[in-house]
Amino acid sequence: MRIPIEGMMDIQSSKPRVVIIGAGFGGLWAARTLARAPVDVLVIDRNNYHTFLALLYQVAAAELDAEDIAYPVRSVFWKMPNVDFLLAHARSIDAQNQTVETDGGIIPYDYLIIATGSVTSTFGVPGVEENAYFLKTLEEAVALKNHIICCFEAASREPDPDKKRALLTFVIVGGGATGVEYSGALAELISGPLVRDYPGIDFHDVRILLLEAAPQLVGPMPDNLRDYTAAQLRKMGVDVRLKTAVAQVTPERALLQNGEAIATNTVVWTAGVRGEALAADSGIAVERDGRVSVRDTLQIGNDERIYVIGDLASIQEDTRVLPMVAQVAIQSGVRAAQNILRQLAGQSPKPFRYADRGSMIAIGRKAAGVAIGKKTFKGFFAWVLWLVIHLANLIGFRNRIMVLTNWAWDYLLYERAVRYVFPSNMPSGSKACSCAPEEK
Amino acid sequence: MRIPIEGMMDIQSSKPRVVIIGAGFGGLWAARTLARAPVDVLVIDRNNYHTFLALLYQVAAAELDAEDIAYPVRSVFWKMPNVDFLLAHARSIDAQNQTVETDGGIIPYDYLIIATGSVTSTFGVPGVEENAYFLKTLEEAVALKNHIICCFEAASREPDPDKKRALLTFVIVGGGATGVEYSGALAELISGPLVRDYPGIDFHDVRILLLEAAPQLVGPMPDNLRDYTAAQLRKMGVDVRLKTAVAQVTPERALLQNGEAIATNTVVWTAGVRGEALAADSGIAVERDGRVSVRDTLQIGNDERIYVIGDLASIQEDTRVLPMVAQVAIQSGVRAAQNILRQLAGQSPKPFRYADRGSMIAIGRKAAGVAIGKKTFKGFFAWVLWLVIHLANLIGFRNRIMVLTNWAWDYLLYERAVRYVFPSNMPSGSKACSCAPEEK
Repeated sequence: MRIPIEGMMDIQSSKPRVVIIGAGFGGLWAARTLARAPVDVLVIDRNNYHTFLALLYQVAAAELDAEDIAYPVRSVFWKMPNVDFLLAHARSIDAQNQTVETDGGIIPYDYLIIATGSVTSTFGVPGVEENAYFLKTLEEAVALKNHIICCFEAASREPDPDKKRALLTFVIVGGGATGVEYSGALAELISGPLVRDYPGIDFHDVRILLLEAAPQLVGPMPDNLRDYTAAQLRKMGVDVRLKTAVAQVTPERALLQNGEAIATNTVVWTAGVRGEALAADSGIAVERDGRVSVRDTLQIGNDERIYVIGDLASIQEDTRVLPMVAQVAIQSGVRAAQNILRQLAGQSPKPFRYADRGSMIAIGRKAAGVAIGKKTFKGFFAWVLWLVIHLANLIGFRNRIMVLTNWAWDYLLYERAVRYVFPSNMPSGSKACSCAPEEK
Repeated sequence: MRIPIEGMMDIQSSKPRVVIIGAGFGGLWAARTLARAPVDVLVIDRNNYHTFLALLYQVAAAELDAEDIAYPVRSVFWKMPNVDFLLAHARSIDAQNQTVETDGGIIPYDYLIIATGSVTSTFGVPGVEENAYFLKTLEEAVALKNHIICCFEAASREPDPDKKRALLTFVIVGGGATGVEYSGALAELISGPLVRDYPGIDFHDVRILLLEAAPQLVGPMPDNLRDYTAAQLRKMGVDVRLKTAVAQVTPERALLQNGEAIATNTVVWTAGVRGEALAADSGIAVERDGRVSVRDTLQIGNDERIYVIGDLASIQEDTRVLPMVAQVAIQSGVRAAQNILRQLAGQSPKPFRYADRGSMIAIGRKAAGVAIGKKTFKGFFAWVLWLVIHLANLIGFRNRIMVLTNWAWDYLLYERAVRYVFPSNMPSGSKACSCAPEEK
């Protein structure tokens, strides 16, 4: 029995309906847990693909194709006959009538799992929204990659030395995992293939700055890995500046809070994330960071039929709020689905307990840091661990082969195969530093 | 010595300058022939990648990634120190002053090779320009793929049976190689993965029509291969209609000259090509099809410093004009470059002779037709030949691995891995049949 999606008139199923909003790790694992259970499941997402966000920075560094880290959602459900998919944008939730309003119709639910994740937060810093590049979606990663290549093309024919240096200055804001990993990957993109692509550019003009407001990089990692990370990046030529905050971003400059102005056409903003807006817009109570404070069963405070999981859920455990990482999303997705099945069986939902598998960060070719429990690893062995774990978590065997081939290219041959600028990939209204000189 | 690109003031090289406009097969092979010769070469293209056009239809059928058939132009020139690249749009040629005006500056030349190829011709059929999809550029192929997937998404939630059938009716106009190969690839995309993706769609509603005005498909092929091609396509469910011409295209219909109206949101126009406009716009005499009628040396009639090669050249040989195929482009590119070197050595340019290596067409998985001289092959053996020759002609070893992996996926597992709809891939002002229902 399929779920009708054009309204509430022609519901013919007698099975309870579970609607899951979001096809990230949380949503997919919730759906998987409900496959073959006596429920009808509908997964709603505004993209027809799942994105493996952990490798997004490699797309933005021309290391992987966008297609390599995307997987068609419908393929995931081929072997789950009770799971259907709707490509649509969920606009709001009507908890009283138990419906979700989407641009594909009004969807009724018996149970709802909200798994819309997190979005970039600019913290209101002036000019960031308009002038900075982001790294939270596949489109943003492709746009950033195109922009980087365009900066080099424009620099290769720029006669003014100041303008040329600004085109070749790349400022990355935020020393968390994304900022660190992108700084490293960008440094390797430039020192490898781009040096060979642009014999006319003096690479002493190229600068990569990584700015972090806190006194250290990758805050949640153990001390020795924090130091290792900063040292590795500096060895790769990245100008790592701690206790450095950005006050304003313009198309030609990043202004720091200490008064310094950095002339640049490229500010990559990875400094903050917040909960996606659907829950808040639907009247569900959220914290200051836009995340929904859930009960230990992952239900929201005043509605036993609504669960929130993954990045969007603010899950208090002992003294900490769980981090926005894939493992929390997966485990909370499974727990929410199991709790719905318990409710249907007349049992009470169980509290969620997070099994922390550790954290890892890749700084570049052959350099990574891994923390598992109290143990830490760094260097080549950690990097191999990083490779294996990321490949294993990628959905789809073909994607694994493609990623492996691209990595082999990159790591063995110091070549980046995918540094094309597809004009149609450029979001309309894209930012400064266009390839076409007259549009600058 | 690099070629200055901001004007004609700071030319410091004493070597003759050869400018090549276009980085297709013709332009690249001309550049390759001039590598290490005592000339400075500048290749101008509006994309920073070379496109392997022979496999474009597979990108539009979600069989290959766009990246698989693109190759970064600058990589081609890594080992050619006298060849430089300019990412720019060539606007016009000033033969008197020996310059090319581009949006990256005015480029002086001593010798010029125009290799800008061919573009789609609508023959002025009303509505084609506005409403049909094309298959001549990578952007167009990606836009068409996105559109096909969007049609299925929209059909899966369309309650009106007539609108649903129109969404699932695909009209391909033109029975040349592109039209035939795309019809076959589309039929396999639909009968393989899409049937599994959309269990809610009745696939009896899906129709693929291939319309050809002439009495047979693939005109230049031998008779037995023409018949084989039509028979194979019909076996795959394609409604092949010969002697059928299109009179008008609207967003909801294809109107035939025989008065029939086909309700469809998808018309793919592969019926005609013409010479790209740069030569004509610069006052160089062209034929009715926009191609430049060249001397047997590939020079234009009234200027010994300007060569035209590839699709843009109308090369009369014995009783025929050479076809617009990669082999003509490659061979004429080499000949033009050699002739420039002869001119520089004080010798007279030699006439071009085309060595015809035959032609081939792939109708689908395990079915192809190959004509070499008077010999013809068809079926599985021809298909293997087709695979090998296309892989060999692809530039870049990585691209070959990627294509091979995707083909293995497709041909062995009947899966298409790359059927994503990336919104940012959508050219602005894209045509009917959007994914988002309210935009329909």
